[in-house]
Amino acid sequence: MSSPNPRLDLTLDGGALTAQLVDFPSVSGDEQPLADAVEEALRAFPHLTVERYGNNVVARTTLGRTERVLLAGHLDTVPIADNLPSYVDGDLLYGCGTSDMKSGVAVQLRLAATLSEPNRDLTYVFYDCEEIEASRNGLGHLATHRPDWLEADFAVLLEPSGAVVEGGCQGTLRVQVTLTGTRAHSARSWLGDNAIHHAAEVLTRLDRYRARTVEIDGLEYREGLNAVRIDGGVAGNVIPDECVVTVNFRYAPDRSQEEAQAHVREVFEGYQVTVTDSAPGALPGLGRPAAQDFLAAVGGRPRAKYGWTDVARFTALGVPAVNYGPGDPNLAHKRDEHCSLTAIAEVEERLRGWLG
Amino acid sequence: MSSPNPRLDLTLDGGALTAQLVDFPSVSGDEQPLADAVEEALRAFPHLTVERYGNNVVARTTLGRTERVLLAGHLDTVPIADNLPSYVDGDLLYGCGTSDMKSGVAVQLRLAATLSEPNRDLTYVFYDCEEIEASRNGLGHLATHRPDWLEADFAVLLEPSGAVVEGGCQGTLRVQVTLTGTRAHSARSWLGDNAIHHAAEVLTRLDRYRARTVEIDGLEYREGLNAVRIDGGVAGNVIPDECVVTVNFRYAPDRSQEEAQAHVREVFEGYQVTVTDSAPGALPGLGRPAAQDFLAAVGGRPRAKYGWTDVARFTALGVPAVNYGPGDPNLAHKRDEHCSLTAIAEVEERLRGWLG
Repeated sequence: MSSPNPRLDLTLDGGALTAQLVDFPSVSGDEQPLADAVEEALRAFPHLTVERYGNNVVARTTLGRTERVLLAGHLDTVPIADNLPSYVDGDLLYGCGTSDMKSGVAVQLRLAATLSEPNRDLTYVFYDCEEIEASRNGLGHLATHRPDWLEADFAVLLEPSGAVVEGGCQGTLRVQVTLTGTRAHSARSWLGDNAIHHAAEVLTRLDRYRARTVEIDGLEYREGLNAVRIDGGVAGNVIPDECVVTVNFRYAPDRSQEEAQAHVREVFEGYQVTVTDSAPGALPGLGRPAAQDFLAAVGGRPRAKYGWTDVARFTALGVPAVNYGPGDPNLAHKRDEHCSLTAIAEVEERLRGWLG
Repeated sequence: MSSPNPRLDLTLDGGALTAQLVDFPSVSGDEQPLADAVEEALRAFPHLTVERYGNNVVARTTLGRTERVLLAGHLDTVPIADNLPSYVDGDLLYGCGTSDMKSGVAVQLRLAATLSEPNRDLTYVFYDCEEIEASRNGLGHLATHRPDWLEADFAVLLEPSGAVVEGGCQGTLRVQVTLTGTRAHSARSWLGDNAIHHAAEVLTRLDRYRARTVEIDGLEYREGLNAVRIDGGVAGNVIPDECVVTVNFRYAPDRSQEEAQAHVREVFEGYQVTVTDSAPGALPGLGRPAAQDFLAAVGGRPRAKYGWTDVARFTALGVPAVNYGPGDPNLAHKRDEHCSLTAIAEVEERLRGWLG
């Protein structure tokens, strides 16, 4: 597979196909050759309708089933860290992207190639630029420019989740709380007004804050409100006139972005609060029939997803979505990234059992 | 006065001599030509014994008087800021160093040239590198290498004090209070321990701190304990494991450096406190006979000196010292630095009245 534009061999088993994908570098921004190979491989199957937008490839069955399930994965990886080519050690496949998330993409491709008569219509989405700034995210571009391609009753994002269903995701909000004062020479401090001292009350509110734990669809979401940065000071002999506390609120998906902002403003009532970053959470949606059936088929006890993932984009489109993939989320982006071959086979088998 | 090594004309009046000195640039590190000119000018007077160490010039009378008074001033200025050559506007002489402190040096030179039979023996000290790092300070070098040249019963530092006697100076102590915690992803903040939140109590102690006001020799010293910097934070999605609060304590000269440190450690009891900078205060010493006589002669109501000046070096040598000079301390280091010609004449006249 060392030629510049190798063909993908979808007859390989999930582990071997993962290795082939891993050895086909596709760092964010350089996905075109891999997107070409994916498109070409999928066009070989008459049961699939294949579409392309940029380096995003969408393949669909059109069997007129009453439900449509969407399986999504990103083609890109973080930069290679001397961890190519891939190699196998026992049950583990090592290499850049093994966990996040070429093992998930391999499962998608295996199902796309082989499920010609699924019990639900299927949409396979392969997209680019997930590992970099949100404005370049291929799934975001599809949601904006080809929203009809993403219509579905339920979506599974094959991001690494340790072969366990992870439902929904937290929202994240970042604000700056700005304290002001008056500069003065520190030898005559009574002529000034110390902005850093004013941060005492802000930090005390943070320190005393008791975060909620919320149960949604049987999953437990823990929230957190934390200072992630504090900056203040002009010089060693100057009473500072500004201090900025940057606060990150990770919240359960029963709050909207607006409700999260209102809550944070209430916590810091009396202070100047500026929102610098906001992304909504995603409800797990596990109560829907498609999800219930999915949970019964794949088994295991679902858990809440911490951190923010693209499932939130599906929620914004009105499509309940979960994370379910073979990779280990704790190994993503690490030099020694690896994935269990057993987990790859297991996830493929369970999805096939649900959809076959 | 545009030749490279002009001669100083000590027959000029104080204002004109100040202008000549101001137009003789001597930014810190480049004092040699001016030190040469000062030495040459003083060697013309048989009533003075002139010594030189580096770019420091010391001239003394040796009349066997029962008391010796030392008059000190630095030759250097901060960098020129498009504010040369000097010019006169009404009573004000404008230019780099007019206030800090070539007007004071002009008064020293005028007294040195004309007081051939003073009522007390006199030592005139002209030193370099006052405006830069303490390790290069010429007065400090003299204190270390030629301490006998600085022996005196009383010292007057002609730093800008608005023609008012300013006694002693505050001490200054800088410490870092370090808070520690445990890193974690902010989406799972309960796995971490937020170091910035721990700063709440430190800032609360600072905010509630009530600084002393102390009267010493009739002068009022106000203390101040202030955060001058705060730093914490790893990334926008990480619970920070360290936060450092830098605190500056400006204290009255009735505390020693050790007592000041002990006090600050007591305020922050239970926290990790590291001293990063310490300079002792200086007692005004206004109760001594030489000082009493000085105060009576120059008149006015003395006040406490805020900020740290070289009078502390004299205190460390056992010589009581005050600041008394014609410049305005609020104009030092400013682009529009200027000095009142009346104040230059007044300070010279009052010192002459005391010593003549």
